[in-house]
Amino acid sequence: MSSIKLWYSPGACSLAPHILLKEIGVDFEAIGVEVRQGAPEELRKVNPKMRVPVLVLDNEVITETPAIMTAISQLAPEKHLFGKTNMEVIHSYEWLNWLSGTVHVQAFGGLFRPARFSDDAGMYAAIQQKGWKTVQECFDAVEAGLHSAHAVGADLTVADPYLYVFYRWGVSGGIDMPARYPKYAALVAKLVKRSAVQAALKDEGIESHAPEVSGVPVVRQHARPLTAD
Amino acid sequence: MSSIKLWYSPGACSLAPHILLKEIGVDFEAIGVEVRQGAPEELRKVNPKMRVPVLVLDNEVITETPAIMTAISQLAPEKHLFGKTNMEVIHSYEWLNWLSGTVHVQAFGGLFRPARFSDDAGMYAAIQQKGWKTVQECFDAVEAGLHSAHAVGADLTVADPYLYVFYRWGVSGGIDMPARYPKYAALVAKLVKRSAVQAALKDEGIESHAPEVSGVPVVRQHARPLTAD
Ligand SMILES: N[C@@H](CCC(=O)N[C@@H](CS)C(=O)NCC(=O)O)C(=O)O
Ligand SMILES: N[C@@H](CCC(=O)N[C@@H](CS)C(=O)NCC(=O)O)C(=O)O
Repeated sequence: MSSIKLWYSPGACSLAPHILLKEIGVDFEAIGVEVRQGAPEELRKVNPKMRVPVLVLDNEVITETPAIMTAISQLAPEKHLFGKTNMEVIHSYEWLNWLSGTVHVQAFGGLFRPARFSDDAGMYAAIQQKGWKTVQECFDAVEAGLHSAHAVGADLTVADPYLYVFYRWGVSGGIDMPARYPKYAALVAKLVKRSAVQAALKDEGIESHAPEVSGVPVVRQHARPLTAD
Repeated sequence: MSSIKLWYSPGACSLAPHILLKEIGVDFEAIGVEVRQGAPEELRKVNPKMRVPVLVLDNEVITETPAIMTAISQLAPEKHLFGKTNMEVIHSYEWLNWLSGTVHVQAFGGLFRPARFSDDAGMYAAIQQKGWKTVQECFDAVEAGLHSAHAVGADLTVADPYLYVFYRWGVSGGIDMPARYPKYAALVAKLVKRSAVQAALKDEGIESHAPEVSGVPVVRQHARPLTAD
């Protein structure tokens, strides 16, 4: 048995690997930190880049969400978390890189972390406004890119929980996600029925932000100030 | 035999998959476009994101550099382009995601494409200045992260030609890369001796920007205005 530790922050992009660890059903230690106002000093010793998620597999430190997902998939190859065919594996990595680079770094980075793009605080509002615009362009692209039951083919892959993270951020930001992105919302409605998703949400102490499921309206969460990332 | 097409722009990040296609020795068609002033309209039909690289494998369109590299590696599994062990595969993806997200989108994105981060042209100089600072922080991190003959272990992996792309951009930007980043420069000096690298540079019609090799000084390229990305 490997020793497995996941460093996460509630609702951050680390939620995706957190869900995947629940999916494969291994024992692991989840170490929660709060990165909203910047990563705490204790994170530096495992990840000098000062970001979550971090996966520590038997003392081997792994950073970057797609690499962590690769490691989790290797722990349970029979789950085919990157899909079953070579082309599904390729398209899984295609989703991951676009979500990580364009959606997370460019779009939400501008919105949540404008200081990464200018040292002049007087510019932050304009950078955030542009980030917000890019977020919505990205969500349009997600909506246009969903063609099957899951993001890549018929079954769950790593792309799905990663998409879920950004959906939650969209809801937090006050976007009426079900109205504007019905296919994206339908995917999320399906995902939140999985026990792995419920278990990860519970451990992180966060709400699902899921849309109404199969016509039964649920209490819609109030728009909250933008926080995660 | 698969039909393989690579859309590239000279010296852009597409140079990395271009080199990898030469490494595996397959026949492919290289389609050059110029993206310096923005991607040309003809690109839209293959990639609505309007970016290179694009790999077209038997009519299947693949975007995002790490996904394209995954596809190329699948074409020649015996080359172990992501390394030989599970952990080397993980660390290859870790390099790729950081290079693609932090180094390319955040650092060089701010420097070369400030319009992605603000609609106010009056802010571009400040965004570029911050991008330039982040580029150098990233290069410091590359230098600190190189521990073995190649980026991941003893042999060539996908991370090496990707690192080479950003090295070239550093030289173009006027950074004295060999003086400031000797391990990074040594890696590049080794890479440019490969016939695959020389062949890709020749096809793209670009200079190597390589440092002096094994003590024999070569004519150092003049710093050029920043262009690629
Ligand atoms: N490229 C990294 C990005 C990770 C990242 O930015 N994580 C955010 C949370 S969603 C974080 O730790 N932010 C802390 C900070 O910026 O100080 C990945 O894909 O894992
Ligand atoms: N996330 C993409 C980024 C590709 C990208 O930004 N390519 C640049 C060339 S290095 C480009 O095509 N830029 C054109 C533009 O921004 O208009 C990847 O990893 O492949």
